[in-house]
Amino acid sequence: MPLVRIDTSDEWADFEVRLIGDAVFKTLQEVFSVPDGDKFQVIGRHALCDLNIASSFHGMEYSNQILLIQITLNEGRGPELKKIFYKTLVQDIQSVVNVRSEDVIVNLVEVCKENWSFGNGLAQLA
Amino acid sequence: MPLVRIDTSDEWADFEVRLIGDAVFKTLQEVFSVPDGDKFQVIGRHALCDLNIASSFHGMEYSNQILLIQITLNEGRGPELKKIFYKTLVQDIQSVVNVRSEDVIVNLVEVCKENWSFGNGLAQLA
Amino acid sequence: MPLVRIDTSDEWADFEVRLIGDAVFKTLQEVFSVPDGDKFQVIGRHALCDLNIASSFHGMEYSNQILLIQITLNEGRGPELKKIFYKTLVQDIQSVVNVRSEDVIVNLVEVCKENWSFGNGLAQLA
Repeated sequence: MPLVRIDTSDEWADFEVRLIGDAVFKTLQEVFSVPDGDKFQVIGRHALCDLNIASSFHGMEYSNQILLIQITLNEGRGPELKKIFYKTLVQDIQSVVNVRSEDVIVNLVEVCKENWSFGNGLAQLA
Repeated sequence: MPLVRIDTSDEWADFEVRLIGDAVFKTLQEVFSVPDGDKFQVIGRHALCDLNIASSFHGMEYSNQILLIQITLNEGRGPELKKIFYKTLVQDIQSVVNVRSEDVIVNLVEVCKENWSFGNGLAQLA
Repeated sequence: MPLVRIDTSDEWADFEVRLIGDAVFKTLQEVFSVPDGDKFQVIGRHALCDLNIASSFHGMEYSNQILLIQITLNEGRGPELKKIFYKTLVQDIQSVVNVRSEDVIVNLVEVCKENWSFGNGLAQLA
């Protein structure tokens, strides 16, 4: 159910973005109890001219290896669980690739459960 | 008003993704009563290494020709109408290209009507 | 906090999409009071075959230089402020590049403030 978009620079190698994606999925399973197989991820690696990002915000400094992780998922997780998610996500990604913790940016977009079809024209969660 | 993102592999040809997009628009018109001309679609064809998708979920098996169709649209359609949309969408896409029904994944993101501008700096629906 | 996706054709040059992105950020700051440094933009320049857009809608005529600007941001801005945003956005973009006002399409997606992490695994706005 989560649809994950990971946008970053083209400085990451194929195997690295795959590791990052799998780490995101691991955290989704661990913290948000996403079921097995519920992995739908689109990775966009961009030339630097197509990433227009400030060098710093909220005391963070960003590098060319910034990861913009936008996750569309079902509503219902509370603020405290989301905080655990962000913290765990950084740890899980850092356990597989070399990335600065400041470079992990996350945005959640919440939808209701009838807003998904996982194939065969069915609304599997409704 | 619907902004449609179709993300898939680069195994689809130019004319095929255009047919798929037009089929999505046909279903939006038929089931969700989207007006003529309300077609705004961005198609992303990705190398397989940039699509990180489980091979199966909810009893579905996915292939390299999986279509991830994310549609941002106005709120207000009920669950039953959405179910009809998913079912019709698969039929409409299959009427123009050869795709497995399991490979059609849909996600709806709903917004309110003042969240659109279709040009000239106006909020045409507000 | 706003995550901005600008999708357009590959007819725009590097420096032009950067100017457009910076104009979007200027308007976000002016009208929506977005703070300094809160600039997270992903620009997608596509071959025309991957942009499936009707030639006209709501009396607008669209060209190959159409800009699809999707902005995920915090909820809370009212309809009147959004109208000012759309109007100002066109002016700000036109002050830096040559674009038809009809070609500026905007969609806002609103989320709650705990749905962001800007690095270090923190929910900075929650």
